[in-house]
Amino acid sequence: MQPSGQLHLGNYFGSMHPNMEWMGKAESSFYFIVDLHALTTVQNPDDLRRFRRDALLDYLACGLDPEKATVFFQSDVPEHCELAWILSTVTPMGLLERAVSYKEKVEKGIAATVGLFTYPVLMAADILLYDTTVVPVGKDQKQHVEMTRDIAMKFNHTFGETFVIPEPQIQEAVAVVPGTDGQKMSKSYGNTIPLFGAEKAIEKAIMGIVTDSKGPSDPKDPETCTIYRIHKLLLPPKEAETLAEEYRAGIPYGEAKKRLAQTYKDFFAPMRAKRETLLAKPSLLDDIAAQGAAKARAVASRTMERAREATGLSGKAK
Amino acid sequence: MQPSGQLHLGNYFGSMHPNMEWMGKAESSFYFIVDLHALTTVQNPDDLRRFRRDALLDYLACGLDPEKATVFFQSDVPEHCELAWILSTVTPMGLLERAVSYKEKVEKGIAATVGLFTYPVLMAADILLYDTTVVPVGKDQKQHVEMTRDIAMKFNHTFGETFVIPEPQIQEAVAVVPGTDGQKMSKSYGNTIPLFGAEKAIEKAIMGIVTDSKGPSDPKDPETCTIYRIHKLLLPPKEAETLAEEYRAGIPYGEAKKRLAQTYKDFFAPMRAKRETLLAKPSLLDDIAAQGAAKARAVASRTMERAREATGLSGKAK
Repeated sequence: MQPSGQLHLGNYFGSMHPNMEWMGKAESSFYFIVDLHALTTVQNPDDLRRFRRDALLDYLACGLDPEKATVFFQSDVPEHCELAWILSTVTPMGLLERAVSYKEKVEKGIAATVGLFTYPVLMAADILLYDTTVVPVGKDQKQHVEMTRDIAMKFNHTFGETFVIPEPQIQEAVAVVPGTDGQKMSKSYGNTIPLFGAEKAIEKAIMGIVTDSKGPSDPKDPETCTIYRIHKLLLPPKEAETLAEEYRAGIPYGEAKKRLAQTYKDFFAPMRAKRETLLAKPSLLDDIAAQGAAKARAVASRTMERAREATGLSGKAK
Repeated sequence: MQPSGQLHLGNYFGSMHPNMEWMGKAESSFYFIVDLHALTTVQNPDDLRRFRRDALLDYLACGLDPEKATVFFQSDVPEHCELAWILSTVTPMGLLERAVSYKEKVEKGIAATVGLFTYPVLMAADILLYDTTVVPVGKDQKQHVEMTRDIAMKFNHTFGETFVIPEPQIQEAVAVVPGTDGQKMSKSYGNTIPLFGAEKAIEKAIMGIVTDSKGPSDPKDPETCTIYRIHKLLLPPKEAETLAEEYRAGIPYGEAKKRLAQTYKDFFAPMRAKRETLLAKPSLLDDIAAQGAAKARAVASRTMERAREATGLSGKAK
């Protein structure tokens, strides 16, 4: 979970919601806020503090259950950095030099730091520490899991079987969430609808959804209408079909947007309420994070001990 | 302290002895075995286990006093890796790309891994964690301290004053120890005399010192004679001068070597005895390392907390 500022609807349906499905399904699951990775792009301490807290709040509000999953901050588990160093000593420079995301980020104007370059090695540690079998990722993250596999296999080959080789699970079926301009919703396109925050801002974003110039009573094609495509995500299939009929019968866009705004509000109301309750209890948030870190360390420290023994950092000299 | 295998006379006079002079002089001093760095060149776990133990044994035998200094293994203090990650996020790639030692090591045939490349960032963490003011280094290590200064200044500039900027202290006055072939003593030249280990091997190395073809009773020039130049290091100035007279009067090389072998044995006898005593008490060694790590962590964790607060990894969100 990237602590990168205000969540939007695209994050919710594109990543949070599908990721949280693993909570009940997997034998154990680990959800953590990658604040150490965030340092490669966030260099304002007040921002990072707010982003960290908000990421935890948002996920808990949206249903992440610390009783069913291990929830923690990456920086609270020192084994992530320790294992990253060890893995770096078997990772060929060529592997990172071929990484696409470093080049893309630098082209976008992110500072070309050593941390940005070695990002995939820390990610490999994130994955390998928990003997992860399945990593649910978006397509854009697939190369990172492949690099993790390469690094783990290189380590196992050098020092003997130590790490579980993880499998990426590409979330093909995940809904593409359209932004207010009809393109994929993304912070970088400026076409997002916030999940939480001021209701006025949410309404403004919804009322600003771009439509074609059809008249109020003209029939509309729900499949190509951005308002409908967003609205549909928030409805059970039957209600979505009933709404589609109304579009075909010719609902005015202004009216359609107001209906979406109401559904949006109702859909996120329980999560918003839960978020506000949690926000008022900072010590509860601290406790959740501390307990999560302790659970994570119990697993991570065992894996690290295997890595120490394998490399010779621990054990009796002969 | 590099755990890189058997110590030789060049290590003793070139690095151990001058470094240990700081033990009494500095307000506090930190001596640690850089086993995490060693992973960039040692990939055999049995070797690393032996090298780690021997490095600790050798230093303690040669006078490193855990009561006067903080003595520990780098890998026992997770803050080294944690701070290295944080520093990596402010270190420009260009800084590492200009590092001489990476290129030199790769040219020598060491695998071009990410760890070898990011070595200077871990070294910066090693130094900055202890609010180090002075780093005694050989000339070849000066660039690493300069890189540490650059990284610390970049961090302080980005996040506010957090780290003490260290000064390198180049050990100009350190004796150059000649090897058995007259060149500088170095493992890579194969011209070393071991400090400990089998006495036969030490005698063999000394008897193999290369000389010119002067006859047994010919006068010898002590200043150009490798036997004398080594012998002198082990003698008080007055005795060294008396010995020089004997060279000028014409001592046979065979006799000179036997005398050196005896002095060598006597000089290191108390250290050898101490080493054997320690080797027989592995639990004492473990205790020394554990107590050292605890002392180091008490300092390192305070520095890390400053770095966490500065970057926003800790503290209350506003």
